[in-house]
Amino acid sequence: MKREIRVIQYGIGPIGQRITAQLNEKTNVQIVGAIDSDPQKTGVDLGELAGLNTSLGVKVTDDSAGLLSDIEADVVVLTTTSTMKNIEPQIMEIVASGKNLISSCEELVYPWKTQPEIAKKIDLAAVDHRVSVLSTGVNPGFLMDFFPLAMTGICQEVRRIHVERIQDARQRRIPFQKKIGAGLPLEHFNQRLEEGVLRHVGLVESLHLLAAGMGWSLERAEDIISPVIASKPLEIGDLSIEPGMAAGVRQIGRGFVKGEEVITLHFEASIGEPAPRDRIVIKGRPDLDVTVKDGVNGDIATTAIIVNAIPTVINAAPGLRTMIDAGLISFWA
Amino acid sequence: MKREIRVIQYGIGPIGQRITAQLNEKTNVQIVGAIDSDPQKTGVDLGELAGLNTSLGVKVTDDSAGLLSDIEADVVVLTTTSTMKNIEPQIMEIVASGKNLISSCEELVYPWKTQPEIAKKIDLAAVDHRVSVLSTGVNPGFLMDFFPLAMTGICQEVRRIHVERIQDARQRRIPFQKKIGAGLPLEHFNQRLEEGVLRHVGLVESLHLLAAGMGWSLERAEDIISPVIASKPLEIGDLSIEPGMAAGVRQIGRGFVKGEEVITLHFEASIGEPAPRDRIVIKGRPDLDVTVKDGVNGDIATTAIIVNAIPTVINAAPGLRTMIDAGLISFWA
Repeated sequence: MKREIRVIQYGIGPIGQRITAQLNEKTNVQIVGAIDSDPQKTGVDLGELAGLNTSLGVKVTDDSAGLLSDIEADVVVLTTTSTMKNIEPQIMEIVASGKNLISSCEELVYPWKTQPEIAKKIDLAAVDHRVSVLSTGVNPGFLMDFFPLAMTGICQEVRRIHVERIQDARQRRIPFQKKIGAGLPLEHFNQRLEEGVLRHVGLVESLHLLAAGMGWSLERAEDIISPVIASKPLEIGDLSIEPGMAAGVRQIGRGFVKGEEVITLHFEASIGEPAPRDRIVIKGRPDLDVTVKDGVNGDIATTAIIVNAIPTVINAAPGLRTMIDAGLISFWA
Repeated sequence: MKREIRVIQYGIGPIGQRITAQLNEKTNVQIVGAIDSDPQKTGVDLGELAGLNTSLGVKVTDDSAGLLSDIEADVVVLTTTSTMKNIEPQIMEIVASGKNLISSCEELVYPWKTQPEIAKKIDLAAVDHRVSVLSTGVNPGFLMDFFPLAMTGICQEVRRIHVERIQDARQRRIPFQKKIGAGLPLEHFNQRLEEGVLRHVGLVESLHLLAAGMGWSLERAEDIISPVIASKPLEIGDLSIEPGMAAGVRQIGRGFVKGEEVITLHFEASIGEPAPRDRIVIKGRPDLDVTVKDGVNGDIATTAIIVNAIPTVINAAPGLRTMIDAGLISFWA
């Protein structure tokens, strides 16, 4: 990466701000624009907004169309939303301006099964404008899909893939602790479950990405959520959790081929989990049992993989890419 | 992988024979030719030679030029030798016939530092004939280079990479046990060391591949071999090892940038190793500590990754590729 990479950031929320800080550490990156629809952020310098002790000389604008047509850039980092419905018009605008795009949108990580029509539309537009579009993150994107897929590369046979992501939420940000329902009485937990707000978005996408990579046509996919129930009193910051309350969430994804469960994705995040880990178990020839000790810190790793993906997405073939065909993402300085 | 893939095998030694068996399990692969220079193998059916209980209708020939010009194929699987010097003319002949090439040649996994002129020559010829050339294996190719590189994709910062491949040679083939000097008195071990036959070929290639992927320009690379000395009597098959004899080999590769050791590759294989494992430790943000329990069986995994790489090399951009830019290799049925 000799020459300078010109980056526009679109979406300056918590993830976008941490990406700003990380991009600011790179010597060959210039942030040339920042977009956010929040009136509170408009006109503010990006460096200030990201909590850096320096001005970046880039003011946040809400005029995406104007900025995208006026400013040349190699790539847009799009961190606005988790859903395809909301992100589609933003993507179409970016692609039409002839810029590559890396996103953290969970549903975009593998939309070909869940929202094939929008996926097809984005793919065609990207091919048309000779740009690549990729969405990734630590999960979905890496731990439960790319990583197990890469491990199967050394297998002569694969019968079954089991992935665990078991986290101690004490080590995560407070919004994450709230997101997993920690400290809720069970009736509130179940109520929030019905509202659909407790769900880890992306488990189904990981399931479909992994299946696609394996060439497995799933006849059925499950995604079942339940509370992790505190068995003893737990304290964290201002939060105290009584026994019987929710300490977090457990979400199990299963994929079936010919009646057999060939993929199991076990996501669990709770306050006080004693054995946090990321683990991949492959039943095949050979069997593989791979563990990341203590698990991967999701806040750090998600911004890392988005930033690390920038050269990959710039060099990828035009179209809507996934972690299967985008090319290797590794650290660059 | 819908359509049939036509494969020529070049080199029908132990690895080639195991690849034959594995290719024979694939429904959409047809082996259309087999080349070996050994007169004992010429004219023999490939299925018979590979110990399958079936004829494959393909007789081994020593006429590489004739076969390569007469027979159409998508890819040649080249498993003849570990060295660039010996493999170069074979590669040039295959590339000139317009066929993609996947090899297990250790030095070819990353030849750009050790033998840049031959690498350049192969690259130019491959681009010229619009075919891709890739060499890989479990080690070098995956465990000590691609795998740690892929893990850095979730890091915001990487200061140091340490990789361990610690094997119990009891679980490997007898030629492997001999190759690591198990059961030799130390003076014989040192003598064989001087002859250069105890070396695990590929450690330096892993070091350079990993450094290239990280964008690190190594000012110095070390590759130091020593015996693992038996501390108690060991028995395996016909082999008995007395205390003080070599039980196996330890080989340490180190890469330095600005006086700092940024890469350490620790390869060790001995009879009776109590804690076999493959392990990657990354010092950075976050730190990562990843372990493959019991380690990966190299005999199984090397043929696996060669076969799994076939679709990848067919779809890769023309030229001499490495595991950095070849594309994802994962299992396919």
